[in-house]
Amino acid sequence: MAPIITLTTDLGLTDAYVAAMKGVILGISPEARLVDICHTIKPQNIAQAAFVLGQACYLFPQGTVHVVVVDPGVGTERRAVVLKTGSQVFVAPDNGVLSYVVPRSLGKRGQLGPAAEAVVISRPQFWRPEVSPTFHGRDIFAPVAAWLSRGVPVTDFGEVIHSVTVLPLTRPRRMADGSVVGHVIHIDGFGNLISDIKRDRLPPSEPVTVKVGDYSVSGLSRTYAEGRGLVALMGSEGYLEVALRDGDASLLLGAKVGDEVRLS
Amino acid sequence: MAPIITLTTDLGLTDAYVAAMKGVILGISPEARLVDICHTIKPQNIAQAAFVLGQACYLFPQGTVHVVVVDPGVGTERRAVVLKTGSQVFVAPDNGVLSYVVPRSLGKRGQLGPAAEAVVISRPQFWRPEVSPTFHGRDIFAPVAAWLSRGVPVTDFGEVIHSVTVLPLTRPRRMADGSVVGHVIHIDGFGNLISDIKRDRLPPSEPVTVKVGDYSVSGLSRTYAEGRGLVALMGSEGYLEVALRDGDASLLLGAKVGDEVRLS
Amino acid sequence: MAPIITLTTDLGLTDAYVAAMKGVILGISPEARLVDICHTIKPQNIAQAAFVLGQACYLFPQGTVHVVVVDPGVGTERRAVVLKTGSQVFVAPDNGVLSYVVPRSLGKRGQLGPAAEAVVISRPQFWRPEVSPTFHGRDIFAPVAAWLSRGVPVTDFGEVIHSVTVLPLTRPRRMADGSVVGHVIHIDGFGNLISDIKRDRLPPSEPVTVKVGDYSVSGLSRTYAEGRGLVALMGSEGYLEVALRDGDASLLLGAKVGDEVRLS
Repeated sequence: MAPIITLTTDLGLTDAYVAAMKGVILGISPEARLVDICHTIKPQNIAQAAFVLGQACYLFPQGTVHVVVVDPGVGTERRAVVLKTGSQVFVAPDNGVLSYVVPRSLGKRGQLGPAAEAVVISRPQFWRPEVSPTFHGRDIFAPVAAWLSRGVPVTDFGEVIHSVTVLPLTRPRRMADGSVVGHVIHIDGFGNLISDIKRDRLPPSEPVTVKVGDYSVSGLSRTYAEGRGLVALMGSEGYLEVALRDGDASLLLGAKVGDEVRLS
Repeated sequence: MAPIITLTTDLGLTDAYVAAMKGVILGISPEARLVDICHTIKPQNIAQAAFVLGQACYLFPQGTVHVVVVDPGVGTERRAVVLKTGSQVFVAPDNGVLSYVVPRSLGKRGQLGPAAEAVVISRPQFWRPEVSPTFHGRDIFAPVAAWLSRGVPVTDFGEVIHSVTVLPLTRPRRMADGSVVGHVIHIDGFGNLISDIKRDRLPPSEPVTVKVGDYSVSGLSRTYAEGRGLVALMGSEGYLEVALRDGDASLLLGAKVGDEVRLS
Repeated sequence: MAPIITLTTDLGLTDAYVAAMKGVILGISPEARLVDICHTIKPQNIAQAAFVLGQACYLFPQGTVHVVVVDPGVGTERRAVVLKTGSQVFVAPDNGVLSYVVPRSLGKRGQLGPAAEAVVISRPQFWRPEVSPTFHGRDIFAPVAAWLSRGVPVTDFGEVIHSVTVLPLTRPRRMADGSVVGHVIHIDGFGNLISDIKRDRLPPSEPVTVKVGDYSVSGLSRTYAEGRGLVALMGSEGYLEVALRDGDASLLLGAKVGDEVRLS
């Protein structure tokens, strides 16, 4: 079966940077099947890249190789890693973009359990012969992903490591009055505010109120089409969301990532 | 031959929603070849999705599966359908997005003739085990398309139906003075105004004038490069278009979908 | 091995124009693997298309077919060509979009050396049966690329020619005082200014100053992360670039393609 390689970058859609990576990959792994996850991550926004990757990567088949190129430190001392977790493989700068795929349940913050395997990318025989200090996506990540897709074992690419960098992700807190205070962790392209409050934080049955800034929403909707104006609902990833029917909630609320979301 | 699956959605390019669908499809139908038709349909704009799908779907090979996810009623009582017409198959909410592919010549509005086959999607064994009320694209449409691409017959997905929803598409009218009054049905990314006036409505030979709002254009050009300023021509789909050489006609004219276009 | 076809167009992402081309290609060459280089070239911007194509095409495997549809003269007398250079093949209007891929070292401006092969596209048996005067991308370029990918020889598509159109590309000049005056040839999606000054123009060791308009930058950085504010560096394609750390240099400097870049 032809291997699958996905790409998540901030390289945008107006240049040939992404295509350059694809050309390199196909030169090494001609059967590879390329799937774009997203190329419009805001420049150098590691947190957004981590979230977007986390939304989709787990849905791909076993053996998929995911490449992430959101890399403000390209060309500096920052490490680059290959991480294998479960049956999927990730190739990325070690700057936090893998925060949502590291199996944290297996260890402390960023430490990898026995089921995961990771190396620092350090063996130039798998890179392009000349490496630009400004475009490791093309010269290192793309060829490494291509060789991985051809079956080269993870441990061939460099020295084994036991932890990768993760972002200090926010977590919701339960307050004395029983309410839960979480945060906006992502604003999607529709302007929906996605919070870090997961389904298990919902009170079992009583009616709830969701507050963001000066706005509050009573009750949870099941779909976007229910209710009018601002709605709160459990989104498709299992996070509590605030959305504006036929509009952009982030504009209406002037909300940004990090803002508090209170569930009571 | 590897099956082809196309995607037409309003899910945008800044999130992983489209990639989530692709991951699900490839998990079920690993050989499927994915082609994007468009993901920047304006949110919930069913008419635009119907037109854009109609522009491209007929050019794909026999057996192609086309998935459409422009779905304002997701999670509500609205039906979802599989429609087979000719040798192509469509998977979509039953909200009018298939208006340009239903073979109307075969029946009254939206009624399907003997050459078409359709079912309501109702059998959960072809869906993801957990279905989010807000993202049927990932949890129902993607897996149904994947199973179709693997050869599961249309009638396995639910109960046979004999009509699908179509939009009340406008049609040009011939006026007493011999002129034809049509409408802008689509504004493309260049700002070209595409009308519902087809070639057979053109007078056989005499010179024509095309009016939109306060502007009028004398004569038809054959190409965009002929003439200056505003030009009228028969576009590549056979519809009368008004375009602005080196500019955006929709901005100049302040035109919008539904505006009258008069040919005299 | 399945053939690869890349697409570079100004057709945008909001319509089905690109998908129409893909449908036509897959109808003729069902195994072809399609890779997007860029579809957001500014409408009819031949120079931008030429540069973007040049950034990526050389990285693709032997035998790749590259289609370019940036074609302000579509439907007029302008020629369309197939060009084979090295092991890659290009299908494009003959308007300068191939300026960065023509092997100029082999001949004078646009004249092709013995290693290149080119024809004017003139044989309708390889086109769609009906050719719209406004969309040769779908009706001529796509099917020609598809037949090329199936192994039809270049010379089957029309009469052999010995030169193709190239743009009068700027070249940097060395001034009496030893400084080098080049030009902005491309502004990428990050707002980085890419000049026509290549690495071999750099003084061997002394510190340099780069001036664009009223701004000047002292010294070259190796990466975008070094330095603050405006930085100058040798970009990943080997051109001198001016970038703004965490910002858009083209906005800050009000710079546009053609502006002088002085290296001293």
